[in-house]
Amino acid sequence: MSKNVLILPGDGIGPEIVTEARRVLELVNEQDNLGLELTEALLGGAAIDAEGVPLPDATLEAAKASDAILLGAVGGPKWDTNPDFQIRPEKGLLGIRSQLELFGNLRPAILYPQLAHASTLKPEVVSGLDILIVRELTGGIYFGQPRGVREKEGGIREGYNTYVYDENEIRRIGRVAFEAAMARDKRLCSVDKANVLEVTVLWREIMEDLAKEYPEVELSHMYVDNAAMQLVRAPKQFDVMVTGNMFGDILSDAAAMLTGSIGMLPSASLDESGKGMYEPCHGSAPDIAGQGLANPLATILSAAMMLRYSLGAGETADRIEAAVSKVLDQNLRTADIMSEGMQQVSTSEMGDAVVAAL
Amino acid sequence: MSKNVLILPGDGIGPEIVTEARRVLELVNEQDNLGLELTEALLGGAAIDAEGVPLPDATLEAAKASDAILLGAVGGPKWDTNPDFQIRPEKGLLGIRSQLELFGNLRPAILYPQLAHASTLKPEVVSGLDILIVRELTGGIYFGQPRGVREKEGGIREGYNTYVYDENEIRRIGRVAFEAAMARDKRLCSVDKANVLEVTVLWREIMEDLAKEYPEVELSHMYVDNAAMQLVRAPKQFDVMVTGNMFGDILSDAAAMLTGSIGMLPSASLDESGKGMYEPCHGSAPDIAGQGLANPLATILSAAMMLRYSLGAGETADRIEAAVSKVLDQNLRTADIMSEGMQQVSTSEMGDAVVAAL
Ligand SMILES: CC(C)[C@H](C(=O)O)[C@@H](O)C(=O)O
Ligand SMILES: CC(C)[C@H](C(=O)O)[C@@H](O)C(=O)O
Repeated sequence: MSKNVLILPGDGIGPEIVTEARRVLELVNEQDNLGLELTEALLGGAAIDAEGVPLPDATLEAAKASDAILLGAVGGPKWDTNPDFQIRPEKGLLGIRSQLELFGNLRPAILYPQLAHASTLKPEVVSGLDILIVRELTGGIYFGQPRGVREKEGGIREGYNTYVYDENEIRRIGRVAFEAAMARDKRLCSVDKANVLEVTVLWREIMEDLAKEYPEVELSHMYVDNAAMQLVRAPKQFDVMVTGNMFGDILSDAAAMLTGSIGMLPSASLDESGKGMYEPCHGSAPDIAGQGLANPLATILSAAMMLRYSLGAGETADRIEAAVSKVLDQNLRTADIMSEGMQQVSTSEMGDAVVAAL
Repeated sequence: MSKNVLILPGDGIGPEIVTEARRVLELVNEQDNLGLELTEALLGGAAIDAEGVPLPDATLEAAKASDAILLGAVGGPKWDTNPDFQIRPEKGLLGIRSQLELFGNLRPAILYPQLAHASTLKPEVVSGLDILIVRELTGGIYFGQPRGVREKEGGIREGYNTYVYDENEIRRIGRVAFEAAMARDKRLCSVDKANVLEVTVLWREIMEDLAKEYPEVELSHMYVDNAAMQLVRAPKQFDVMVTGNMFGDILSDAAAMLTGSIGMLPSASLDESGKGMYEPCHGSAPDIAGQGLANPLATILSAAMMLRYSLGAGETADRIEAAVSKVLDQNLRTADIMSEGMQQVSTSEMGDAVVAAL
């Protein structure tokens, strides 16, 4: 039985990195007889340019019909000044997350031993780092209504957004996090701002409630400002962290950067049934697009995650991850992770090396 | 003419650290004939215990009548479970900020050369670090209405808060930030999430608008997730950063922790006229309260900031800062900044040393 994989190259370095991941997927598809059907569609700025909207109907239909989605990255200054806030690349990404109910965002921050020096933190602070951030992805202030810019008396404009979560939304992301903790070191830190924001008082209450179903998991709570501090001070204290959409956006980027090699980190966004969209943690990096400087490994590792979690091909995923580890052992490095004594390679040369290692 | 200084010890380590700062203030008051009248009042958990509310009327009246306020810190687990959200220590702090319109929060993140090793970041990444974070303190999601927990159909509860800023609020904090940049390296980075949140689209627009009045200042914009990353990756790229209440809470704590010595960092919260409340960047640290472990230097440096910005005693402030530098040169360290070869001292011994140096 064939499986449909939708590929969304997106903007900036998206097309380059996705090209390499696609080569890897095509190779393992043949080698391991996976029966994958790969198709591509437009999302983000590329879709705005071609069709006038960031998430064309055809893309949404293809996404719904697919078994899994691999995304490059979206966004860029070209579309940032569009006066219509709905016609921006990010709206395409947010639309697909929301329409497909991909509420469970898993963002690992792992330090690769071969890249230990790449971190700006001292080796003893980050060596062996392995955190999983579970971010709620289809609710919170990203999607809350009402929102907009309105006029008050006197013609003064006021911008407003709504940070909202209901019990069910909190419970379902909580469950993802507790399950993830069960499969790891059984420690879960829930991040909120319950000393100021009522919405996170409810968040904390539901997490406490869920903890009764997972007596083996040690649940702790941390205010978001303290969490940002603790990530810098002693990141290895964390196993799994769970938080809302906005705090998760900030903390997962900070955590990823602790490793110094955000070009290496994949992510998964899953719905209730385990169907998902997979993408690198990094952005579309328009400043280096088209120069062969981008690191395709985060996207290749995202493809591996996709094979494991949504396509039932865990062994193929293992092979890809081993191949990535091998090219690092061969001292091959793209510009972002380059260091003395290593050999700098381009985006496509890195893809070549992974293909060769497979 | 005498000047009234209101001292709010607060909770946890607050009373201990404020005691040392008060000794310093009393000494310089005599030495430099400043005519300061020091009085104390209750705020936070201490006020809840004594009066049942976190911000008693008497405290608010005294605060309004004062020329400047020195605060220790508020909060602790003892009051965290209070079912009435209004009767929590933090509400006292937020109340005083709001009632006195202390909208301009200045949070420097400075690396003391004597404490360079204390950072978890590599020396080359943080040496010479000197960032000023300007945080809006009386608006945004901290104070936005409507807010609370309500029931939806089916009895499902939903928590909600409102992130709101009007043009005037944005403009007045922007002005503080541009002025601060003018007095420094003339580079201002405004942090928002304008690709997702409408309220920060307005924020960005007003910052752009203000930039026309400050042609010498180089204004840039950064999304908050990227800002959190850049603070870890290359913090020295920043001079002044300006952002809203919630993002400022998170980023200023992360920035402070980059120095590794949050026990050294003062902060100021100013109103339109320059009247202000001064407090250490760190919290009430209930876990080490009453053990003589707390570092009083951030509070002593906050007192110096107070003398400079609100009490017209800049030379006295210089003297206090020099005294703090001297005790560091004498290798005296409280537990939080202790390292090999240094001499560990208690909270009061550190106070003694500063007093002796003066
Ligand atoms: C592009 C942007 C809308 C997005 C987000 O904020 O969620 C990105 O930062 C991410 O984390 O995937
Ligand atoms: C105690 C708390 C309400 C406060 C805040 O979030 O503003 C604190 O974290 C701070 O930064 O001063």
